[in-house]
Amino acid sequence: MTDAADADDDLATTSRRHFLRGGAAIGGATLATGLAGAGDLQAADTGNLPPNVPEWMKVPGDPMGSQLYGMPSPFEKNVIKNIPKNLPQYISASGRTPLQDLDGIITPNGLFYERHHGGVPTIDPAQHRLMLHGLVDNPMIFTMEDLRRFPSESRIHFLECSGNPVYKKPYGKTASDLVGLLSCAEWTGVPLKLVLREAGLQAGAKWVVAEGADAAALTRSIPIEKCLDDAMLVYSQNGERLRPQQGYPLRLLLPGFEGNMNVKWLRRLHVTAEPAYSREETSKYTDLMPDGSAREFTFYMEAKSIITRPSGGQRMAAKGFHEITGIAWSGRGKIKRVEVSVDGGKNWQEAQLQEPILTRALTRFRLPWHWDGMPTVIQSRAVDETDYVQPTLAELLSVRGDNYFYHNNAIWPWHIGTDGEVTNAVNA
Amino acid sequence: MTDAADADDDLATTSRRHFLRGGAAIGGATLATGLAGAGDLQAADTGNLPPNVPEWMKVPGDPMGSQLYGMPSPFEKNVIKNIPKNLPQYISASGRTPLQDLDGIITPNGLFYERHHGGVPTIDPAQHRLMLHGLVDNPMIFTMEDLRRFPSESRIHFLECSGNPVYKKPYGKTASDLVGLLSCAEWTGVPLKLVLREAGLQAGAKWVVAEGADAAALTRSIPIEKCLDDAMLVYSQNGERLRPQQGYPLRLLLPGFEGNMNVKWLRRLHVTAEPAYSREETSKYTDLMPDGSAREFTFYMEAKSIITRPSGGQRMAAKGFHEITGIAWSGRGKIKRVEVSVDGGKNWQEAQLQEPILTRALTRFRLPWHWDGMPTVIQSRAVDETDYVQPTLAELLSVRGDNYFYHNNAIWPWHIGTDGEVTNAVNA
Repeated sequence: MTDAADADDDLATTSRRHFLRGGAAIGGATLATGLAGAGDLQAADTGNLPPNVPEWMKVPGDPMGSQLYGMPSPFEKNVIKNIPKNLPQYISASGRTPLQDLDGIITPNGLFYERHHGGVPTIDPAQHRLMLHGLVDNPMIFTMEDLRRFPSESRIHFLECSGNPVYKKPYGKTASDLVGLLSCAEWTGVPLKLVLREAGLQAGAKWVVAEGADAAALTRSIPIEKCLDDAMLVYSQNGERLRPQQGYPLRLLLPGFEGNMNVKWLRRLHVTAEPAYSREETSKYTDLMPDGSAREFTFYMEAKSIITRPSGGQRMAAKGFHEITGIAWSGRGKIKRVEVSVDGGKNWQEAQLQEPILTRALTRFRLPWHWDGMPTVIQSRAVDETDYVQPTLAELLSVRGDNYFYHNNAIWPWHIGTDGEVTNAVNA
Repeated sequence: MTDAADADDDLATTSRRHFLRGGAAIGGATLATGLAGAGDLQAADTGNLPPNVPEWMKVPGDPMGSQLYGMPSPFEKNVIKNIPKNLPQYISASGRTPLQDLDGIITPNGLFYERHHGGVPTIDPAQHRLMLHGLVDNPMIFTMEDLRRFPSESRIHFLECSGNPVYKKPYGKTASDLVGLLSCAEWTGVPLKLVLREAGLQAGAKWVVAEGADAAALTRSIPIEKCLDDAMLVYSQNGERLRPQQGYPLRLLLPGFEGNMNVKWLRRLHVTAEPAYSREETSKYTDLMPDGSAREFTFYMEAKSIITRPSGGQRMAAKGFHEITGIAWSGRGKIKRVEVSVDGGKNWQEAQLQEPILTRALTRFRLPWHWDGMPTVIQSRAVDETDYVQPTLAELLSVRGDNYFYHNNAIWPWHIGTDGEVTNAVNA
C-alpha cells in the first residue's frame, strides 16, 4: 500500500488520470455510449473482441494435470535464453537471461543465465559428496542428506558473470546481449561458516579452494573472510532444488562476488594458507592493466544498472506516457539511488525504487515519462550504499586501457528515434 | 550477514560445532587420516565417491542450449504438482504445491498451485481485452499493450484457496495434502486504482464485479475499498509472464483475499452499487453457520502456519540435531511471531523468522531442535501483526459447527514415531 501511495506521489507531476487519454491518446479505446452491462456481452456473433464472448470461453479449457510441472504459455515461446552463436561450446559458451522481457527482480528458474566450461553434468544427488579437507581439525565428507541436516537460510541475491558486457564493439543490440549474464533468485542452503566450524578451522587457514564436479573441474580460491561472512552452500533456488545449469545438487554462493567464483556442482573445499592460482584465476578472470601488470582477484561486482524498458530492440508505440523501468544492483550491498536521464545525460532525475531493497540483490527502478516524440537518449546510473557511482564507459576505459576484459559496469545509453525504435546508443 | 549472525545466536543453546558429530553422530563421515590434498583426488580407480573422480567429471556434460527454457534435474522428477484423484474435472479439480519439498518463500512457477472451474483456456494476448464499464465516466476497453503502458509495481504475495484444508477426515498425509493450495510469487502489474481513475469512478461505485474469460466465466464481487487499496492487474509472476494456469495473460490480484476472488483470465470489470451474488459467491465460497444462516463474503485469509520439515510422509533419519522449518502467512498483513511446540502443545518456543518479512507473503520460520528419539508431536502457531493467534482445530469447530467448509486455518500437528516416521497427528 505504501508503495502504491509513493507511486501516486511520483505521478503527481504527470497527468494523474490520463495515462492513455492525455494530449496524445494512444489506446484504451473508450466504449461506444449505450453499452451498459452484462447483457450486451452475451450477444456474441463474430470475433473475440468485446462485447463478444471469445471462442475460448465456449469450450472447456485444458484439464487439471495436463502439466504436472507447469510451463509458459505457447504465446511466450520466444522468451527463452539468448545464446550467442559461434562461441566455443566448452570454453566460453553462455546462455543469457532475456532481461528486456522480464519484470520485477526474481528471475524464473527456466530463464536463469548459464555459463559453464565443460558442459552441464548430470549428477545423482545420492552419489554426490562434498569433501572438506586441508587446514581443518577434522576432514569430513558430506552427503546431500548431511548438508540438509544443517541449519539453513534463504536469501535473495543476484549472480552475474564478470564478463558482462565486453568493452569493445560489437556490444550487441538488446539488454540481454549486453548484460544478460545476470539473474536473481531466492537461494536456500547452509551458511558455509557452520560447515567450516563443524570441521574446525586451524590457525593459518586463509583461503578455501572450491572445486566443481564438472568436466572442467572449475576451481577458484575464496578468501576465508568471505567464507565466514555470508557465503552459503546452496541446494535450492526459488523454492525448488537447483537446476542442473546452476549446479545441481550443490553450489557455492558468494553474494556479490563474480559469477564463476560461485562454484557449481561443488565437490571439494580445500582449506589452505595460499590461493591455488588455478586456471580460472590466472589465464582467465584476471585482467591486464595498461602498465602490463595483471590485476587478479577482482571479486566484487561493482554497482551497475540498465534500463530494460524501453531498451534495444523494442519500439515505442507512440508518444505520450511511458514508464521507464530497469534494474540496478551492487556486489557491495544495497542500492541507494538510481538516477535516470532522458536527454542524453544533461539532466538526471531520481527514479522510484521498488521495495524491498535487499543487499546484493536486483532492485527494480521506475520513472514515469512523457515522450514528446523527438529523438533522444535515455540512460540510468546506480549509486550503492557505499556512495559508489556507476561510471561511464569512457571513464572506465580511461583507467583500464585497451586490454581489460572483465568487470565492465558502465552506464549504458539507449537511443530512441522519431519512429520510436530503440537502439544501442554506443553502437550508433 | 545479520541473518546469519542471528542464526548463530539462536544456535548458541545447541552444540555450536557439532550438528553432525554430537552425542549421536549421524553422518558427515570424518575422513581417514592421511588424506591430504588434490593428489589423492586424482587417483581414481572405482566408484564415484571421494577421493575418486566421479564418472560425470570424465566426459563433457550437456552442451549449452540443450534447454532453451530450463527444466529441473531428472532426479527431481517426483517433485510435481500433487493432484488428488477422483475430483470432478471441471468442478473441483485442483493441483497442489508440494510444500514439503520446497525451501524459502518463493514458489517456482512450474509448481504453483492451480484451481479452476472450467479448465485452463489458451488465450492469445493480442486478442485479449479487458472491458471496464458500469459506474464510470468513461467505459473503456484495454488491450494488453495498453495495460503494459500504465505505471507498474512488483510485490511478493501468497495466494491460497479458501478450502485449504477441509474440516473433516480424511485430512491427507502430507503438508501438500493439507495446505498445498497455497503458493507465493513476485507479481508485477498495474495498481487497479490507477486504471479505475483513468475511467473515472462515479458516485455510488461500491463494488467491482470481475469476470474471467474461462469456460466457467468465474465471477466475483470485490469491495471498492480493496480495489482502491492494494489490488493489482497482474501480467507477470516471478519475472516472466503469467502461466496459463495462473491466468495468462491477465489476472486480478487481491493480496490476502481468498484465492478464487483473484480472478484469472480477467476480461471484465463491472463497477456497480451492489455485489453480483454470483454462483461463486453464493452456491460456493459461502458457509453455513450452526444456526442455519449463511456467512458470505469471507474475504480474508486469516493467520496460519505449518511445519514443512519434518512433516507427514517424511522420516527422521536419526535422533540428534534437526532443523524444524515451515511457513507462516496472514491475509491481514505481516507475520509477527511463530511459536513451535515439540512436546504435544505443552511448551512453545519462538522460532526464528527469515528476513525480509513481507506483508501478505509467506514467511519462512526455523527452530533448531535436538530430537531425543522418543515419540512426540510437533506443531507451529502463527501470530500476525494484528495479534491474531492461529487457533486449534477444536477451537474452530466449536465456533463454526459441522457445516462449515472454507477458511480452515487450524494449527496442524505432526506425530513423530520412534522409527522417525512423521504422520498427521490428527488422523492418528
